[in-house]
Amino acid sequence: MTRPLLFSAFVMNTASHILHGLWRRPDARQIDFDSLDLWIDLARTVERGNFDLLFFADVAGLYDEFQRSHHKFIESGLQIPSNDPAVLLSALASHTEHLGLAITSNILQEHPFQFSRKMSTLDHASKGRIAWNIVTNIQRNGARNFGQELTEHDERYEWADEYVTVAYKLWEGSWDEGALLRNRDTGVFADVDRVHKIHHEGKRYRVEGPHLVAPSPQRTPVLFQAGSSEAGMRFAARHAEAQFLVAPRPEVAGDVIRSTRALMAESGRRPEDLLVFQGLTFAVGSTEEEVRRVDRQLDEEIDTEAMIAHLSGAAGVDFTGHTMDTPLREITTEGSRGILHMVRAAVVDREPTVRDIGVLAGRASRVSGTPEQIADALEAWQRVGVDGVNVMNATIPGTYTEFIDHVMPVLQRRGLARRDPPSGTLRHQLFGRDRLPDTHPAARFRNAF
Amino acid sequence: MTRPLLFSAFVMNTASHILHGLWRRPDARQIDFDSLDLWIDLARTVERGNFDLLFFADVAGLYDEFQRSHHKFIESGLQIPSNDPAVLLSALASHTEHLGLAITSNILQEHPFQFSRKMSTLDHASKGRIAWNIVTNIQRNGARNFGQELTEHDERYEWADEYVTVAYKLWEGSWDEGALLRNRDTGVFADVDRVHKIHHEGKRYRVEGPHLVAPSPQRTPVLFQAGSSEAGMRFAARHAEAQFLVAPRPEVAGDVIRSTRALMAESGRRPEDLLVFQGLTFAVGSTEEEVRRVDRQLDEEIDTEAMIAHLSGAAGVDFTGHTMDTPLREITTEGSRGILHMVRAAVVDREPTVRDIGVLAGRASRVSGTPEQIADALEAWQRVGVDGVNVMNATIPGTYTEFIDHVMPVLQRRGLARRDPPSGTLRHQLFGRDRLPDTHPAARFRNAF
Repeated sequence: MTRPLLFSAFVMNTASHILHGLWRRPDARQIDFDSLDLWIDLARTVERGNFDLLFFADVAGLYDEFQRSHHKFIESGLQIPSNDPAVLLSALASHTEHLGLAITSNILQEHPFQFSRKMSTLDHASKGRIAWNIVTNIQRNGARNFGQELTEHDERYEWADEYVTVAYKLWEGSWDEGALLRNRDTGVFADVDRVHKIHHEGKRYRVEGPHLVAPSPQRTPVLFQAGSSEAGMRFAARHAEAQFLVAPRPEVAGDVIRSTRALMAESGRRPEDLLVFQGLTFAVGSTEEEVRRVDRQLDEEIDTEAMIAHLSGAAGVDFTGHTMDTPLREITTEGSRGILHMVRAAVVDREPTVRDIGVLAGRASRVSGTPEQIADALEAWQRVGVDGVNVMNATIPGTYTEFIDHVMPVLQRRGLARRDPPSGTLRHQLFGRDRLPDTHPAARFRNAF
Repeated sequence: MTRPLLFSAFVMNTASHILHGLWRRPDARQIDFDSLDLWIDLARTVERGNFDLLFFADVAGLYDEFQRSHHKFIESGLQIPSNDPAVLLSALASHTEHLGLAITSNILQEHPFQFSRKMSTLDHASKGRIAWNIVTNIQRNGARNFGQELTEHDERYEWADEYVTVAYKLWEGSWDEGALLRNRDTGVFADVDRVHKIHHEGKRYRVEGPHLVAPSPQRTPVLFQAGSSEAGMRFAARHAEAQFLVAPRPEVAGDVIRSTRALMAESGRRPEDLLVFQGLTFAVGSTEEEVRRVDRQLDEEIDTEAMIAHLSGAAGVDFTGHTMDTPLREITTEGSRGILHMVRAAVVDREPTVRDIGVLAGRASRVSGTPEQIADALEAWQRVGVDGVNVMNATIPGTYTEFIDHVMPVLQRRGLARRDPPSGTLRHQLFGRDRLPDTHPAARFRNAF
């Protein structure tokens, strides 16, 4: 039986998020990311187009240096400037009705007391449409912007575990149901017996409480997570309600989904309490010839060197001393094995070079085809257990208007996309309930104080 | 020569901000502070009513305990729940054209790297209409929500000095003028030679940079400060562009203004670079009889005990063991001298009690009168050097619609309020320039890195 997929517009408050160089296109409005109107227009567009979510990525600093400097990042606008996404959400909420609004927030960026308060306020302001993509910091510069050095990988997840624990205590445990009375007759605003300090004492945080915000429609925002490492998957299995993948092929996604679901069972959670979103870019044409043209144009216009710089920063592959024409066999850096393997598999008719990495990165998550072919491809992703698509963009708003105008109708015809607007909180839209289920680790703090 | 005064609506994202108990009035919409629409409606109302600013107070926790518990605060909704004001601003900006949007942010709440990024993003989103009221933390519970104990008073201002220094470096020094190119032809988004790390190393903060946000219309938001202690006044004289007073009488305000301006000269700043706002509440009537009725109703409906609890929390007067009927002569707590003196001066016909403190607190900043009498009173405040009024509310939106409908026309007729909407950034509206003047301490970081 075909179920509708979920659709998320994956963006960042910056000029060059994933497909670098495309801000140069004349219709690329993402260079005006400073403008609130750009984001309001986009939110309204994707809501009308039956998307479920507008999802903001984020960073806490520059990526690690490429060719011994941060020049390439600044020159290409590669996630720098990068504006705060959280402060846009109230404007987006006020101009939409039911669109989910997800932000990435790094546990490095804010103290959990302040972060929890901010998210609760936004959940109230949006009538329960907020989601949080929990990330740990992978940037050396990010750490140094906050007076720290980069934390060890596994230790980062221990830190994240304490961070979400503080947030859960504030969101789920500090205010009991019914604590807020607002009784004009008696003059009692809140019931003191149902408002609690949390007295958290942990390795990194001491937080007295109570939470400054009364329970919002969802209490805890919908929890996203994107880690694909062993520790990241364990964290997702324990905490996440939605997982964001960028798997190279459906089978790979299928493997990750099976592993995560198995880990969920170990944590006492039900597999259906996690939704999986695959990140994809699209090259859409009405004929196969047009598809080939769109595809070729993307290959030509994507800034290959910027793609490599981004990979270098995010995956820790150091290309210092190499040019774009250096043969791959001369690259011996740690952490490059997976990438090099993929390039060697893709380029078989000649000696692959560094440039081929960038070209491949620009194509990695691309689905090229007519609307019907794209629907076929999405069905293949759905068959391995993917619940939704995180639509990454070439241009804003072009990628989304094109997808909505040309692909969405075909998906709707096939039952692969919903036709009617949903209602209620985001968690209600996704799971049919406003609050986290009892099997979620946050639930243990209900009535605990 | 009469100059127009500036008008600021002083509010808080909570039910009971200053005049406690009045949320019980049937028309008090402030009990719906969770609702974004309340704040959007208010922002539009005061903008149409020729107010210059919507100004949010804030706290980082509960006030200190009253009668050995936090019961009274929670029961009265006294600044708890208290939602984050900062995340409302983009919605308010998107529904207004020129209204200034000021938030209070405690240096305890956010790391200056993240805070500076948030404010720059908001300054972009609002096209330069953001102001920041710099506060240090005075709440024991606030400190404990962030894993700390209360910092010594003078040490708090040293901390604030480093905090604003980090912010100034990011706002004024990290990106030179002209660094952002967004050149579609050359593919150069920003000029690497004009973007700088700040490498701040101080007592509390180490921040590498660069700032993640390119220069916003005002770069540094308009800086407010409210400290009236010696250290607070020195801080205001050095950093503030606007000072918020709640002086009991015009002459007292005049003294503070003279002292602050003298201190400004010591810092090499010009006296005209600081605007002073006096906080006032109003009891308006069309006849003297109606004024008396409105006045009496306020006295009756203000929650006197909550006023005392608030004073107790904010001014450190401990009333433990005393009832509302305890004679004042039995109160011997530190920090109470000024308050007790005021009450003794006001209540001369009988033995003053604790209750009288609350009654007086409810009346302290009140101007009662017909619109003409109120205009007279505001002229008296203007004569001592006050530039603007921070209008504190009994009800939202009632206090503001009443002021706009009945008092504003009289003020406009007398030249005490402007008639035409201003344009440009908030700093342009207030000072005729978009950026801080060269004499401000932030200016030394321009082109410094």
